[in-house]
Amino acid sequence: MDVVEFRPEPEQYAWTFGGVAPTHRITPGTVLRLWTEDAFSGRLQRTSDKPSQVLDMTQVNPQTGPFYVEGAEPGDTLALHIVDLTPARDWGASTTIPFFGALTGTDRTALLNEPLPEQTWIYQLDRARGTVLFEAQRSQLEIELPLAPMLGTVGVAPPGREVRSSLVPDTFGGNMDTPEMRAGTTCFLGVNVEGALFSVGDGHYRQGEGESCGTAVEGAMNVTLIVELIKGGQRSAGGAPINTAPAWPRLEHDDHYAVVGSSRPLEDAWRASQVGMVGWLGELYGLDPLDAYQLLTQVSRSPLANVCDTNYSAVTKIEKALLPGAEAYGGMHRHLRDQARGL
Amino acid sequence: MDVVEFRPEPEQYAWTFGGVAPTHRITPGTVLRLWTEDAFSGRLQRTSDKPSQVLDMTQVNPQTGPFYVEGAEPGDTLALHIVDLTPARDWGASTTIPFFGALTGTDRTALLNEPLPEQTWIYQLDRARGTVLFEAQRSQLEIELPLAPMLGTVGVAPPGREVRSSLVPDTFGGNMDTPEMRAGTTCFLGVNVEGALFSVGDGHYRQGEGESCGTAVEGAMNVTLIVELIKGGQRSAGGAPINTAPAWPRLEHDDHYAVVGSSRPLEDAWRASQVGMVGWLGELYGLDPLDAYQLLTQVSRSPLANVCDTNYSAVTKIEKALLPGAEAYGGMHRHLRDQARGL
Amino acid sequence: MDVVEFRPEPEQYAWTFGGVAPTHRITPGTVLRLWTEDAFSGRLQRTSDKPSQVLDMTQVNPQTGPFYVEGAEPGDTLALHIVDLTPARDWGASTTIPFFGALTGTDRTALLNEPLPEQTWIYQLDRARGTVLFEAQRSQLEIELPLAPMLGTVGVAPPGREVRSSLVPDTFGGNMDTPEMRAGTTCFLGVNVEGALFSVGDGHYRQGEGESCGTAVEGAMNVTLIVELIKGGQRSAGGAPINTAPAWPRLEHDDHYAVVGSSRPLEDAWRASQVGMVGWLGELYGLDPLDAYQLLTQVSRSPLANVCDTNYSAVTKIEKALLPGAEAYGGMHRHLRDQARGL
Amino acid sequence: MDVVEFRPEPEQYAWTFGGVAPTHRITPGTVLRLWTEDAFSGRLQRTSDKPSQVLDMTQVNPQTGPFYVEGAEPGDTLALHIVDLTPARDWGASTTIPFFGALTGTDRTALLNEPLPEQTWIYQLDRARGTVLFEAQRSQLEIELPLAPMLGTVGVAPPGREVRSSLVPDTFGGNMDTPEMRAGTTCFLGVNVEGALFSVGDGHYRQGEGESCGTAVEGAMNVTLIVELIKGGQRSAGGAPINTAPAWPRLEHDDHYAVVGSSRPLEDAWRASQVGMVGWLGELYGLDPLDAYQLLTQVSRSPLANVCDTNYSAVTKIEKALLPGAEAYGGMHRHLRDQARGL
Repeated sequence: MDVVEFRPEPEQYAWTFGGVAPTHRITPGTVLRLWTEDAFSGRLQRTSDKPSQVLDMTQVNPQTGPFYVEGAEPGDTLALHIVDLTPARDWGASTTIPFFGALTGTDRTALLNEPLPEQTWIYQLDRARGTVLFEAQRSQLEIELPLAPMLGTVGVAPPGREVRSSLVPDTFGGNMDTPEMRAGTTCFLGVNVEGALFSVGDGHYRQGEGESCGTAVEGAMNVTLIVELIKGGQRSAGGAPINTAPAWPRLEHDDHYAVVGSSRPLEDAWRASQVGMVGWLGELYGLDPLDAYQLLTQVSRSPLANVCDTNYSAVTKIEKALLPGAEAYGGMHRHLRDQARGL
Repeated sequence: MDVVEFRPEPEQYAWTFGGVAPTHRITPGTVLRLWTEDAFSGRLQRTSDKPSQVLDMTQVNPQTGPFYVEGAEPGDTLALHIVDLTPARDWGASTTIPFFGALTGTDRTALLNEPLPEQTWIYQLDRARGTVLFEAQRSQLEIELPLAPMLGTVGVAPPGREVRSSLVPDTFGGNMDTPEMRAGTTCFLGVNVEGALFSVGDGHYRQGEGESCGTAVEGAMNVTLIVELIKGGQRSAGGAPINTAPAWPRLEHDDHYAVVGSSRPLEDAWRASQVGMVGWLGELYGLDPLDAYQLLTQVSRSPLANVCDTNYSAVTKIEKALLPGAEAYGGMHRHLRDQARGL
Repeated sequence: MDVVEFRPEPEQYAWTFGGVAPTHRITPGTVLRLWTEDAFSGRLQRTSDKPSQVLDMTQVNPQTGPFYVEGAEPGDTLALHIVDLTPARDWGASTTIPFFGALTGTDRTALLNEPLPEQTWIYQLDRARGTVLFEAQRSQLEIELPLAPMLGTVGVAPPGREVRSSLVPDTFGGNMDTPEMRAGTTCFLGVNVEGALFSVGDGHYRQGEGESCGTAVEGAMNVTLIVELIKGGQRSAGGAPINTAPAWPRLEHDDHYAVVGSSRPLEDAWRASQVGMVGWLGELYGLDPLDAYQLLTQVSRSPLANVCDTNYSAVTKIEKALLPGAEAYGGMHRHLRDQARGL
Repeated sequence: MDVVEFRPEPEQYAWTFGGVAPTHRITPGTVLRLWTEDAFSGRLQRTSDKPSQVLDMTQVNPQTGPFYVEGAEPGDTLALHIVDLTPARDWGASTTIPFFGALTGTDRTALLNEPLPEQTWIYQLDRARGTVLFEAQRSQLEIELPLAPMLGTVGVAPPGREVRSSLVPDTFGGNMDTPEMRAGTTCFLGVNVEGALFSVGDGHYRQGEGESCGTAVEGAMNVTLIVELIKGGQRSAGGAPINTAPAWPRLEHDDHYAVVGSSRPLEDAWRASQVGMVGWLGELYGLDPLDAYQLLTQVSRSPLANVCDTNYSAVTKIEKALLPGAEAYGGMHRHLRDQARGL
């Protein structure tokens, strides 16, 4: 397996999905060992740092990439398997950014209220204990919370000639901010442009579902990925199209299938993930859509991802143990897990 | 402990929260052994039954109760501990009702599309295996799913002189349709009228988060509850008000705290549950709201409840293992668990 | 024509739709000369009055009524023609109520922001000039605005055994807060219970579309109405059902047809009004729904009503001059205009 | 005054805001005489044309431009005055596109319903009578509707390195689809990139508020514009910043001020326009935000623009006759009206 290592210099960061020349061209099957800067571009370091003073809002959520995948064409499906996520620093940061977050007026939910106070929390990592330390800043409480590394942002170049900020989640993935994007996950994304042009970033050492204040325990991350490509446009023996690129990002864990929808209002984000799962169940089991709707109604797990970004993201998730055995994408996830074990 | 057993006759069903005379007057500490009819009033029995033909939409979601709790006054908090939920029939039913459900146009999301086809699924119970059997109706698949009994509807009379349909979830609880309402749960509800006038119903043998098609595996249920009352208007030694009635329903499990918000759009339902949890964290740990917002951002579990009812319901939930020890409502949940073990 | 005059004493106010005994029984064709108290129950009188100090939130939006209309049955349509609205005081009041209004966090759009400041504005009426005077309180500006009296709240008892606060707009009408409800308007409401049990209140001397701060120029009002009843369950010569009660309130002016939808999110309120108008166009012109959708797309006026109440209200409105002549409800509006001229 | 005439060839159409090289460089004060193709790229011509067969969805809503305005820098405000809009064809077209429109499930409001039928309506123009002819396709009705030309799409390059489809409305303007964008209107847009890079397109011969089926009476248009630039970064004698670029598009007519907000859900689009107008009233009259909120509450007109596009657009509008005299942007609109008269 080809292995590519890459730690971008600040001038190499990508700030968008689409619209950026690739940093690398890679072939399917390549292992990537990457470093990603945190969403604050490393500028928020102390509890006395105020976002309005230290952040440059034109330089938030830097991405590592994009990577051009040889042979990837519109209609194909990119499979990104997250082998490992290891914090690259011994601290993470979170903060309240004026007019940003789920429980405050924002530029979109435009109100006349003053912004919430700016407050920054720094979380110290204890690698031995596998924890980050929450320290209350305006009252008294310290809590060790389990480290739970995830990637907030994984995406390909969007369709329709668009270039989107790395802060945006949509059909192309992007800033979905779901704790489901963790080591052991395979992420399936429809390819929109030649080469797919995917990038990753926005490591979180830990995040709750919904990311209510708008920022997780943000931290630089060492990321190991395996990249695979599933060609589209194929047909089964019976002539039915197979390996159709999914309309919304799909995730596969050892124990769950998941679909992520991103839109507003939140019910629409969730509906997209539900209709996506109805489709996936149809592909896996030949289920009629109404039967899939019924089954989903009784087995869906619906953990929110983010309710603070440009689009909100919601997850529909099904435990594999509830379902008959199946091989999504010809067993791609299992194959990638095997590959990962060999690294 | 007083024990009251009650299996209502059809003419005794309550169809609303508020506006109904109590069937019983009980004292705090009473154990209730109840039977609840299913949400279809038992009329949907065969896969050939079409909702538009067999249901009477003025008689859906019958409630058992209401119960008048002696001494309960506005400002108090009612604690309902679910000791046991046991299916009262050997089958449950689910169906697609025209213009109802999350993935179809409805009376509220009014569209010009034709309704989805009416289709009914009957789930056979296997008590020995602890399962219900999903049988696809329009394609081929059978799956045994674990039985996971819950109550869709638990509520008190609403404030402001209102009488609400038993199909509605709101601040008074009601038709929240969350799988979190299961045996072992204590539900805390603010009391709005003298006697609280709570009722329960809408047993589900199993339900996914979001209840997308609008109906769970609906079934009659044997319900064992313990009822307690927490008087409001008290003050701590320092003079701070304690035991303030919660704005939104709170749930306590052995291992989680949860708050349920119900509104539209879905982000507002979730915001209500989040702000409710910020308040609860403040009560439990003396946390400043901004510190609670931050902590919540990193630890919240956010499973959806329903995205199909008059109001949508969303849950904010925190694992107790992540938090320092605390005694919500003076340890009421633990006390009720002890009581339940003695039954 | 029977004429009933009624100025309720405070203990006669109704605070809900449904759940209240009628103050009067009237026959179709009756003229009502009513007095309505303002939404603050007259308690907000000076710019120094703060809502949190002077208002009793259990006594806001008092209604005059309900009136029991002899012969009205579910399935019928009530026609309320507003003959005249004349301010009953020489001043009106508006204010910012904490956690209420469109541009602030509320109990539903629950946020962590502090409430906006409480500020009260008193508008002096100049009857000769037909104006109310806006006087800025925190800066310098006075503007005479044209008097434009309307009724914020017109509704019947709701269906489904419900009792709803007079603050709520829904299918039964209620607190729609639309400037379209003015002298010269006929309001058509589906009857849900025997006698219809309608009431009116919440006079506004003037209001912008959306009622953003949550309160219009609120003032006591002298209201003249004519009440008519359109029996349902009738069939045309061809057997088609006619005079079906409308799902949502319909308004007819001399120059416009309008439908009011009330829901959340706001797009759903508007969709309800649009689908309602597609139906009305079908009734008036025998238009296929898709043709009506197309026509509506090119002729709809869509002025918002309120974006602050329990449900938001949106209006779909079509200029009659754009349409062929037609007689809605057998010319009821024209008939009532004629009657009104005779008073 | 410089006059530039331009009728783009199909290969010169722009399909995005941002990401396209300018077709022309112009100086402030230039008059543009442009031709714009219709949103279907002219491919929908007969009532038998089905969108799924004749449209290329990668080539819809072609824009004329972009134009690079010499001297325009981020922070400046572009003023586009629409002098004249004259239909360039003798017919316009409207249609129902599968999974697009306000009263159907869409890719965002993802449902399981089948799409509505595809149906196309062709409107013949009668220039002498100033009308377009609605002809029902599935039932019997013909109506002459007044011609009311407008531009659906007017925008500049977006901020934050983004490139957006010409189907999108947002802070940069774009596909707002408001009937307020007509001859006689001055549109003020904040400049995000050097040269502003604005383009226009999507002529509508007529459109209702909300554009419910998703397509207006779409037609090629002859467009006359005058382009002006208002430099930002200036300060009044007292040191206050003036001519700040507006957060959302502002429109000025002879008789109204208007602000357009675009977001989802619809209440957020409207809130953006309301907060935008609170700000504009503050600039025009030195009003405190709370006073402006109050005044707006009583005078706002709130006509919806579109409830079908990627973002919904809502308008807040105030009649100038209600307000004291004022000169927005130093009387720019009046100046442009004068210029237009001289053409």
